[in-house]
Amino acid sequence: MFYHFKELQYPSKPERPDPAYAKRLQEILGGQFGEITTTMQYLMQGFNTRADAKFRDLILDIATEEIGHIEMAATMIARLLNESPTEEQEKAYKSDPALAAVIDGENPLNYIVAGAGAMAVDAEGNAWTSDYIISSGNLLADFRANFNLESQGRLQVVRLYNMTDDRGVKDLLSFFIARETAHQNIWREAIHDLENREGDIVVPTTFPREKQFNEVAYDFYNFSEGEESTKGPWTSGPAPDSKGEFQYYDRPVSYGKEPHLKSAHPKLHNTME
Amino acid sequence: MFYHFKELQYPSKPERPDPAYAKRLQEILGGQFGEITTTMQYLMQGFNTRADAKFRDLILDIATEEIGHIEMAATMIARLLNESPTEEQEKAYKSDPALAAVIDGENPLNYIVAGAGAMAVDAEGNAWTSDYIISSGNLLADFRANFNLESQGRLQVVRLYNMTDDRGVKDLLSFFIARETAHQNIWREAIHDLENREGDIVVPTTFPREKQFNEVAYDFYNFSEGEESTKGPWTSGPAPDSKGEFQYYDRPVSYGKEPHLKSAHPKLHNTME
Amino acid sequence: MFYHFKELQYPSKPERPDPAYAKRLQEILGGQFGEITTTMQYLMQGFNTRADAKFRDLILDIATEEIGHIEMAATMIARLLNESPTEEQEKAYKSDPALAAVIDGENPLNYIVAGAGAMAVDAEGNAWTSDYIISSGNLLADFRANFNLESQGRLQVVRLYNMTDDRGVKDLLSFFIARETAHQNIWREAIHDLENREGDIVVPTTFPREKQFNEVAYDFYNFSEGEESTKGPWTSGPAPDSKGEFQYYDRPVSYGKEPHLKSAHPKLHNTME
Amino acid sequence: MFYHFKELQYPSKPERPDPAYAKRLQEILGGQFGEITTTMQYLMQGFNTRADAKFRDLILDIATEEIGHIEMAATMIARLLNESPTEEQEKAYKSDPALAAVIDGENPLNYIVAGAGAMAVDAEGNAWTSDYIISSGNLLADFRANFNLESQGRLQVVRLYNMTDDRGVKDLLSFFIARETAHQNIWREAIHDLENREGDIVVPTTFPREKQFNEVAYDFYNFSEGEESTKGPWTSGPAPDSKGEFQYYDRPVSYGKEPHLKSAHPKLHNTME
Amino acid sequence: MFYHFKELQYPSKPERPDPAYAKRLQEILGGQFGEITTTMQYLMQGFNTRADAKFRDLILDIATEEIGHIEMAATMIARLLNESPTEEQEKAYKSDPALAAVIDGENPLNYIVAGAGAMAVDAEGNAWTSDYIISSGNLLADFRANFNLESQGRLQVVRLYNMTDDRGVKDLLSFFIARETAHQNIWREAIHDLENREGDIVVPTTFPREKQFNEVAYDFYNFSEGEESTKGPWTSGPAPDSKGEFQYYDRPVSYGKEPHLKSAHPKLHNTME
Amino acid sequence: MFYHFKELQYPSKPERPDPAYAKRLQEILGGQFGEITTTMQYLMQGFNTRADAKFRDLILDIATEEIGHIEMAATMIARLLNESPTEEQEKAYKSDPALAAVIDGENPLNYIVAGAGAMAVDAEGNAWTSDYIISSGNLLADFRANFNLESQGRLQVVRLYNMTDDRGVKDLLSFFIARETAHQNIWREAIHDLENREGDIVVPTTFPREKQFNEVAYDFYNFSEGEESTKGPWTSGPAPDSKGEFQYYDRPVSYGKEPHLKSAHPKLHNTME
Ligand SMILES: [Ca+2]
Ligand SMILES: [Ca+2]
Ligand SMILES: [Ca+2]
Ligand SMILES: [Ca+2]
Ligand SMILES: [Ca+2]
Ligand SMILES: [Ca+2]
Repeated sequence: MFYHFKELQYPSKPERPDPAYAKRLQEILGGQFGEITTTMQYLMQGFNTRADAKFRDLILDIATEEIGHIEMAATMIARLLNESPTEEQEKAYKSDPALAAVIDGENPLNYIVAGAGAMAVDAEGNAWTSDYIISSGNLLADFRANFNLESQGRLQVVRLYNMTDDRGVKDLLSFFIARETAHQNIWREAIHDLENREGDIVVPTTFPREKQFNEVAYDFYNFSEGEESTKGPWTSGPAPDSKGEFQYYDRPVSYGKEPHLKSAHPKLHNTME
Repeated sequence: MFYHFKELQYPSKPERPDPAYAKRLQEILGGQFGEITTTMQYLMQGFNTRADAKFRDLILDIATEEIGHIEMAATMIARLLNESPTEEQEKAYKSDPALAAVIDGENPLNYIVAGAGAMAVDAEGNAWTSDYIISSGNLLADFRANFNLESQGRLQVVRLYNMTDDRGVKDLLSFFIARETAHQNIWREAIHDLENREGDIVVPTTFPREKQFNEVAYDFYNFSEGEESTKGPWTSGPAPDSKGEFQYYDRPVSYGKEPHLKSAHPKLHNTME
Repeated sequence: MFYHFKELQYPSKPERPDPAYAKRLQEILGGQFGEITTTMQYLMQGFNTRADAKFRDLILDIATEEIGHIEMAATMIARLLNESPTEEQEKAYKSDPALAAVIDGENPLNYIVAGAGAMAVDAEGNAWTSDYIISSGNLLADFRANFNLESQGRLQVVRLYNMTDDRGVKDLLSFFIARETAHQNIWREAIHDLENREGDIVVPTTFPREKQFNEVAYDFYNFSEGEESTKGPWTSGPAPDSKGEFQYYDRPVSYGKEPHLKSAHPKLHNTME
Repeated sequence: MFYHFKELQYPSKPERPDPAYAKRLQEILGGQFGEITTTMQYLMQGFNTRADAKFRDLILDIATEEIGHIEMAATMIARLLNESPTEEQEKAYKSDPALAAVIDGENPLNYIVAGAGAMAVDAEGNAWTSDYIISSGNLLADFRANFNLESQGRLQVVRLYNMTDDRGVKDLLSFFIARETAHQNIWREAIHDLENREGDIVVPTTFPREKQFNEVAYDFYNFSEGEESTKGPWTSGPAPDSKGEFQYYDRPVSYGKEPHLKSAHPKLHNTME
Repeated sequence: MFYHFKELQYPSKPERPDPAYAKRLQEILGGQFGEITTTMQYLMQGFNTRADAKFRDLILDIATEEIGHIEMAATMIARLLNESPTEEQEKAYKSDPALAAVIDGENPLNYIVAGAGAMAVDAEGNAWTSDYIISSGNLLADFRANFNLESQGRLQVVRLYNMTDDRGVKDLLSFFIARETAHQNIWREAIHDLENREGDIVVPTTFPREKQFNEVAYDFYNFSEGEESTKGPWTSGPAPDSKGEFQYYDRPVSYGKEPHLKSAHPKLHNTME
Repeated sequence: MFYHFKELQYPSKPERPDPAYAKRLQEILGGQFGEITTTMQYLMQGFNTRADAKFRDLILDIATEEIGHIEMAATMIARLLNESPTEEQEKAYKSDPALAAVIDGENPLNYIVAGAGAMAVDAEGNAWTSDYIISSGNLLADFRANFNLESQGRLQVVRLYNMTDDRGVKDLLSFFIARETAHQNIWREAIHDLENREGDIVVPTTFPREKQFNEVAYDFYNFSEGEESTKGPWTSGPAPDSKGEFQYYDRPVSYGKEPHLKSAHPKLHNTME
């Protein structure tokens, strides 16, 4: 059960309206790594987890913060779409019939559909989809997803920070960037906690190793001309899981032969051999 | 430019047809973490990267292997949908008109649309979408995405391994599981390589820290009743990036006040205050 | 800014596991009229509204309740997927290798992807999409959308109530049904409040009537054989907006003639007349 | 079975080409509340209804009109993309190689994919999806959906009317606005007809009230700080369904306790407590 | 402008209800090659075409027929979901509370969402999307799309015909199969008509051949081991367009060298070389 | 199994950066008829086919070439987004803070999400979806789909060729246009090969004609006013399949009567007659 405080976590007010920038900022609200994704991903992980109370609480603490991030992002976008000084607005009223402010680089949906409001879409107007969510029940896997989510998220906010001069916008983004620093550190810490406890880094750690085809579990196959990929530490030496040594193969190895599929049922009316 | 060898990387043949299991196996072909995702994610990262040749080559070596994984997964599914022993098939021919084999728990699209063929869909018949791809141009972020991809992928293959008795299927899956062990180790190694080189773990490492709202960059806010989340190492002590100390707040902190949006343009015909 | 209480708004525990029913119950979590839709629709309306504080507060009060509905629906689904009595589970452990419980009528994604967890999908496994959201900035229009949302929602919950014997499930659903009674009444009341204030029922009420093509604003055209549609009150008498009289036309009226499009630019290489 | 008349219901010809406006006008063709939605929603309701002939005929009369609205909207868009005076076109032919007219604010798909033709997409180029359709078999619910559809639709057309000076476009839109006035009135009338007949306003009216958790069926919970929401008529007095009194609660009430999920099957390889 | 006749083009009544088959039959209503696709594809082609009146009329004649096919398919599905003999229904009424008929292999959306009604979805419950539509303004290209559409469509109807014993269903399908025979013949004839008139088969025929890189316009590259592909007529002899000779290359030819991308702007915070 | 050569099939380098054109060029990478579609469509057809080795090899030869087309298209887009001469870039660095180049007509996702990289989306930023794929197991049907794919593809590349002056871009496109000439010829040849072998053109050729409702298999129904459609060869004379004569009907013929659906189960709470 949730409760709403009317105060924002951080001020969210631009210096001036900028519909074209509002369109871009939609990415951090309704994009693949935006606030709706973080909220919904953490909520689903938290509601579904069977792990220790400390993990469930950790996830839901951050999830609940993220709902407030949706609030700040939506508020900023609504204001970028609209909050013009009154005089300017007056002028716009008189120029009949065009909504003059509504013409350069904006997302037309923000006006036609949402009446100068934020929408749950990305910077190209694509609807948010729960395909963005990652929630598997295996927290080591999911915390890696969360670590990636906050990494991609901070990267995108930084890029957007570099695309505006508006001090109000930059101020809010500097807050988001800092919180994503915090969250990257937290998920990293939680990953280490789980890796130590499970004694392995290969997800899922509980699958018996002898059941996998171990012969190829540390092989690196060179699937292209040239050997540039051998310049990195991933083709020789002990692997990070401390359970094997990387092995390099100059050419891909084939264990199977050419497949020949049998005819399908004639009632399917396929082309047959 | 690519080239095709007719041999499979590994044998892909079930002991017997099993349309209901074929439906589930579609997940590793066309699901969020299936072989089409790994292929397309790595291809896009590889074609777009501006980083060192060793990284580009690493990414494209694995990408090219993954195309062959699509091939094996599709072959297995096609055979699970169809490869019945001839006698059985004969019997089915005679029972007019129903395709008797086509009735229990299968994905009907595999028959109606694809003629007993694999499709680029997941275990519930959802079309594959490039929304699953992560490719940002920042390799530290993207290698975390890849590490997660191979973690979720291996987890799903293991679950599917546990849902069948067919030795042919289990054999192929044990190969995939091993390759995903290799790939988890490789991406982990590559992540460390980049973290060492960049001297930080917070993506993007090149954004000046003084521009973020540093005051909150290591705060943990307790957004829910109870303090279970303090049982883990993420609320106190040095953070993993070695640049700050976790700070715990019993209650969320509000830096902003309640927002009041100005009226929208009257020509938008919103409800006004 | 939001805060999480660990108690559920209402108990959410089935008598016994039922994966096939869990699949159906996904509809009220991630379907078109499920709890994610109500939550996100009300949040977006609330964050974006420029209307009176009483409306904003009304919307956000209900929005916040709805987040807790997601919580209860997800909890119920997770339990339907899993909460078997221990003895039974023990037996399942021993039967190697199949997850016996995982085979009849369930959504395989709930197991393969989510590890016996709820997902943000509908009863056919379709991802939730923000295309379901309605939020226009015009509250009279939007409250009609909300009234419909709670009507469709209650209808679906009632249908699901009729599809199970589990007393735990029925108990939770009887709570949802009652809340949707409350919400239908509330939105209806709010609609009347706005209609009275705006003095019209035709949205948007602020568009000057003389600018529409008034000649057809109360016409009913019979676009099909037979006159059954005249049996209702919508083809004659005063219209509900009290601003016109319904007028019935036995045949559709054409004001325009056959269109002839001019040739497109030759560089588009269309087929030309 | 349907039949096509070559005349348009109303003239659909702009004064001059305007590709950027054509992009916006796509919203009323292929957007959430555009003519394809109204057509398909009414067709599906009409083909599926088991109710009286007068309702079936009513729905299909309007559905059939709407197909003609698709025709007019598509014609207008095709002309906005192309119908330049011949001299101007001549000039464009000579300026090699760019399609000069094709560059400012247009949807590139209208040219690259459709050859200066209308498409079944919205103002941001998103494909139309049947997720927009509402058709439940319960006509009281569905007529509310229809009432909302014509409300949102008219609102959007009015906004688009305010975004152009072209008299040809405004003329067509004034026709759509008038028809949406008619349709709002008709659906409203039909809703009243059904409410009177069913003797209740809470959908579905046929579910026995004693089976819902009546205790909360008229409660208003204050889920946020402040009491602005009590300024409206929805927290006290008789509810519109005349079957209860609104009851206000200053704080949300919790009937359930914190959930603890049991461990999932070990073969799912989740993180366990 | 359209008009509706109440008679169906062909009877649409099953012998008995069959919800599991209804789910499959959804494919020809809302699938990639179902009746909604044919309707919408032909309508969009017809409304947008700038070609001769005979083509426009041809397309819209067939488009209008297809709307009636939606009607018959929807009617059949609604009846398969429901039309049980009364006695049987009586019995079902008494068995409280389960909807017994609603449990084996059906699409639950047909009941929960649509109340035993047809939906605009495919056999796996995926929403219909306008991504299925092909309409380019170039009729030679589009008639090939139409020819394919009727080919795939007839193939699917034939497969569905083979999956049922119900004589009512088979009767309607035999009608669809025959109409798709007619439409395949019609589009084929129209294709020949255009090819003859344009004097070429390579779309678009109006692009000057000398502007393409002619050197490779008839090459066949062997991109895989083995030479099985040379067994067909496509690697030697005159090409069907009579403007060149097929040329076979044992190995793919490379005209370009390895690409090296320049660094991106530092403000994008990519990983750099 | 596949192998990667580092050389491109053809050079892919623009003369100068052009982010707005890059946005358009995305269509041939991630659009309905772009290189990802051709690649995935041919791979799925090839992996699933049960027909002769010559067909399988033909399909996979072309499929493998197409992966290299993705590579060239992605490379070109990445360069159009970025490859400015160094001086210009220097200047851009200094103008703080805006990424000046990032503002006119570009797809913001290419920068915010992909860091000046290509994405698997179309010219309006819509994600690629496997809904674009056609693969039925019946090669006559599928080769028609392929013929259409290369027809629509070449049409779109030609349109894009006409929208730029950049000689580097035009050079690459002239290569694609030529290859699509080759592929149109190849699929046409393969279609004839199959039609000859199967002795019919109506897909599926193996369905017994006597089982279709032959009475209407060559009828042309005039579903609209006027007789323009009779000006073409599709309403009289022998049909292309040589198995019937086209028959023209001035008016549509109705074989069925008005449908009346029986009441649905009362537990579905529909509106009943
Ligand atoms: Ca956040
Ligand atoms: Ca793989
Ligand atoms: Ca609710
Ligand atoms: Ca309309
Ligand atoms: Ca048809
Ligand atoms: Ca190609």
